[in-house]
Amino acid sequence: MSPALVISVPQTLEIDQYILYGKCSNSLLVVIRLKLGQDSDPRFGLFIQSKTMDESPQQTVQGLGSLPFYVGGTQVLGLACVVITGVWMGSYHGGYAWDGTQQEFNVHPLCMVLGMVFLYGDAILVYRVFRNESKRNVKILHAVLHFLALIISIVGIVAVFDYHNHEKIPNMYSLHSWCGMLTFLLFCIQWLMGLGFFLFPGTLTSMRSWYLPLHVFFGLAMLAMSLATCLLGISEKLFFAIQATYSQFVPEGILGNVLGMLLIAFGILIGYIVTREDFRRPPHPEEEALSVHFKTLTEGGSPSSP
Amino acid sequence: MSPALVISVPQTLEIDQYILYGKCSNSLLVVIRLKLGQDSDPRFGLFIQSKTMDESPQQTVQGLGSLPFYVGGTQVLGLACVVITGVWMGSYHGGYAWDGTQQEFNVHPLCMVLGMVFLYGDAILVYRVFRNESKRNVKILHAVLHFLALIISIVGIVAVFDYHNHEKIPNMYSLHSWCGMLTFLLFCIQWLMGLGFFLFPGTLTSMRSWYLPLHVFFGLAMLAMSLATCLLGISEKLFFAIQATYSQFVPEGILGNVLGMLLIAFGILIGYIVTREDFRRPPHPEEEALSVHFKTLTEGGSPSSP
Repeated sequence: MSPALVISVPQTLEIDQYILYGKCSNSLLVVIRLKLGQDSDPRFGLFIQSKTMDESPQQTVQGLGSLPFYVGGTQVLGLACVVITGVWMGSYHGGYAWDGTQQEFNVHPLCMVLGMVFLYGDAILVYRVFRNESKRNVKILHAVLHFLALIISIVGIVAVFDYHNHEKIPNMYSLHSWCGMLTFLLFCIQWLMGLGFFLFPGTLTSMRSWYLPLHVFFGLAMLAMSLATCLLGISEKLFFAIQATYSQFVPEGILGNVLGMLLIAFGILIGYIVTREDFRRPPHPEEEALSVHFKTLTEGGSPSSP
Repeated sequence: MSPALVISVPQTLEIDQYILYGKCSNSLLVVIRLKLGQDSDPRFGLFIQSKTMDESPQQTVQGLGSLPFYVGGTQVLGLACVVITGVWMGSYHGGYAWDGTQQEFNVHPLCMVLGMVFLYGDAILVYRVFRNESKRNVKILHAVLHFLALIISIVGIVAVFDYHNHEKIPNMYSLHSWCGMLTFLLFCIQWLMGLGFFLFPGTLTSMRSWYLPLHVFFGLAMLAMSLATCLLGISEKLFFAIQATYSQFVPEGILGNVLGMLLIAFGILIGYIVTREDFRRPPHPEEEALSVHFKTLTEGGSPSSP
């Protein structure tokens, strides 16, 4: 992570186009011209502080050194969730088919855990994993992974509606279905908004920086909703399948509960990685050029942008 | 609070004593000389950002002006959740008692929603609501609200165990019970850790600042877990009580589902308020002196070189 010099300007001052910095023997000279806005208060304080985010190289390496282990942990947990779901439906409920029977229903949990949990989580993580790739490429990867998640989720949702219709079971009455549909609709809106704000070239930087914190917040909130929906689905499935024996700690009940615990662990680990300050993406030269020329880019206390 | 220009320097750069700034027509010129340390990385990023903490009075009022509405929203949603839970158990399931019967079970959902959702959420919010109180007082209020949440939750947990034991129903077999117990144990640990780190007077400031982000992250993660546990509980209760008619959209089923949606809305609103940058507690003079190691501080608008 290359260290950064961050200059935080009170919003009464507009940032001018004029910044210069250079090395002179063992000193660094920074010249900044800031345009005073019409209502600027000419009295203001100047603070210089050591930045605790981007610490000495040793500390940075220590902090980032643990990132691969956390990311590895998410992959192990996420894959375990997908595999356990697959095996659960495969060995306890007769495998997979697309014929309107119970085997078509089985496609639903597998697709939802794969799409709305594993791929969704990985799409969030790309900004932490590909720290040194160009931001444009990482954005595209983020969008592609979310698009895959969307397609796989649609297959999973069609599977359960098709099964219900075939078996004359009413749709959309359970809390699981309400939570799931809400999460899925918000996910679609978020995906389209993300595309419009961050990949559509005409969007103003000021609009991007307005929307960015909302995109990040709702992205994590929806992952939590998606996980809660999975827990509801596991519980519902266990009550339908083994209500008589669930309280006797039969293997299928324990398998479902363990899957629930692993999903929670996956969500917590993803949330931790994404919100931890020193795992944030470092500033890159080409992004700097943008941030200097545009008047606002970053929000919050650190130079970061998911 | 007068606006400030804050320059955050990576710790690889030593800060030299040479700072100059002056006003020139409607521009502000800032010249900074920074001494490069022996191990300094000559490649570093330069970021200029609008500071969101110290905004212009108008913007501060605008941003903060919406805070009471958001907080009011959480109170309406949180109280609605408590009332709906109370009415649900009261009118559909025979009210409350402490005699090992179904009426004792009914104490469980009410206490858990009151303790682990409403009071828990409010305990988190105190740092945003009492922005101008002394930090010590707000900390004590935060701890007291969490303590109330803890006591009420213990009553709720005892109620369900007592009911199960009286009715010879096995304990701790469902996913709801596993999630709930995990959340409750983590909550107890977090409460004790919070007490030790933030209210015990002997704790070092460095230890506090190490633990703070973990405390905040796990606080929100556990609120999410608590809400997911409530959703599981609602779903479980509906399957036990009205499995035969749930799919016919009977009033009790819809009431339970609506309660679930309101709980999600409460969680999202609390999460949004707590993570929104411009709702953060402003730094107070005495806190700044403790937390910010600024090496140079100049006041006034005239060119100066300290």
